Amino acid sequence: MSIRYISQKIAQQIDEELMSASGAFSLDQLMELAGLSCAQALSKSYSSKSHRRVMVACGPGNQGGDGLVAARHLHHFNYKPTIYLPKPGSKDIYKRLLKQCENLNIPVLKDVDQFKKGLSESDVILDAIFGFSFAPPLRKPFDEVLNAITSVDIPIVSVDIPSGWSVTDGPQPLYTEKDENGNYETIKTFEPQVLISLTAPKEGVRKFKGKHYLGGRFVPDELAKKLELNLPEYRGVDQVVELPSDSQSAKH
Amino acid sequence: MSIRYISQKIAQQIDEELMSASGAFSLDQLMELAGLSCAQALSKSYSSKSHRRVMVACGPGNQGGDGLVAARHLHHFNYKPTIYLPKPGSKDIYKRLLKQCENLNIPVLKDVDQFKKGLSESDVILDAIFGFSFAPPLRKPFDEVLNAITSVDIPIVSVDIPSGWSVTDGPQPLYTEKDENGNYETIKTFEPQVLISLTAPKEGVRKFKGKHYLGGRFVPDELAKKLELNLPEYRGVDQVVELPSDSQSAKH
Repeated sequence: MSIRYISQKIAQQIDEELMSASGAFSLDQLMELAGLSCAQALSKSYSSKSHRRVMVACGPGNQGGDGLVAARHLHHFNYKPTIYLPKPGSKDIYKRLLKQCENLNIPVLKDVDQFKKGLSESDVILDAIFGFSFAPPLRKPFDEVLNAITSVDIPIVSVDIPSGWSVTDGPQPLYTEKDENGNYETIKTFEPQVLISLTAPKEGVRKFKGKHYLGGRFVPDELAKKLELNLPEYRGVDQVVELPSDSQSAKH
Repeated sequence: MSIRYISQKIAQQIDEELMSASGAFSLDQLMELAGLSCAQALSKSYSSKSHRRVMVACGPGNQGGDGLVAARHLHHFNYKPTIYLPKPGSKDIYKRLLKQCENLNIPVLKDVDQFKKGLSESDVILDAIFGFSFAPPLRKPFDEVLNAITSVDIPIVSVDIPSGWSVTDGPQPLYTEKDENGNYETIKTFEPQVLISLTAPKEGVRKFKGKHYLGGRFVPDELAKKLELNLPEYRGVDQVVELPSDSQSAKH
């Protein structure tokens, strides 16, 4: 049986059950393991020798928190991360995670122009901007941020859902333009090379063509069974497992 | 420069600094990473094929918390853990960690006789009974527990400091007896095959002869430098690194 691509609603339900009184997980624990998975997925795809300088772009929500945890682990994995955090989340946990990164002297950028300059000095981008709670439209400064990311020629590793994609419907045009016949034409979409889905892949990434990892090796067997997630087996002590790509699974 | 073996006082200082307002770590985070290191160290030494049944013996303090986290990860790593927790700690975090294990249907034993029976059906023991805060004498039921562990012929993986050892002076006799000349003679000491030291090894394990891992890949570089810990380099995404054994380091 192949893995289930879950809706936004089921994704929320998993998080809620894990953090309920009966699930008993704290956000600190889950974010630590999620962020560690992200750092491992990046490391499996781009080595610290060839892609040492990682721009970690963080949104204001839990996705950004995963990014902050990943940045810290990437530092310990001998990468040289830089954090872009234009709108720090207000929850205490984000402040603590940011402080942990500052204690490692990881540079933190706030301004979009600094970010663009930082991008030109990076080898790979970890996109932790929007997660499964994202709903269009793109708000400032993230419209400019996504356009900047797609304008540079370095690989993108997206966390959970590529930023700007619909959790249900997948890739969305970053902007459109009238062609010569007066029809609107998609100019650009956001296309990461690597995706790390957390707990289970979301419906919108069903046709993702790049390297696809699953992370979040903490979903209890009974919850996975109840929701028919059909999760693949992880190996050894890995916190991530590679999923067959869409083109591969189409062969079956 | 060789690694520093730290005192109980320095070990406490590291924990305090990490969890201070400026260190910004939560106990949930540190315990998650520490427990994950323990599960990884066990997995590097004893495979889930040959040593599937792991008895995780947990004390009432933070050491026991590390054990509960390790048990959960061992379950996900395809081991079959059983928890022995005779005196559950009262802090909320221990209750949550225990509940997470119960949600995975990991058996939890409370009675020392159940523990002894469980030992006879185990392939390896994870000793998370006492940590660096331990001070003699051994209190009930742990005197009986340590004697039971040393009476079975299965390997022991100890967390941070082998249980019953002095953090400063190392191995302590579990009990002594008068020999034929009326002199007291050590009958038994607690000798684990594998040790996983957390953040930095403690003074008492300087002469430990078995396989020795270091875990806790989260100590900020500046703190390590300030305390002259001389930590070795971890590899790849590993959460543990093997230390040269005492006999090897004696060659230098």
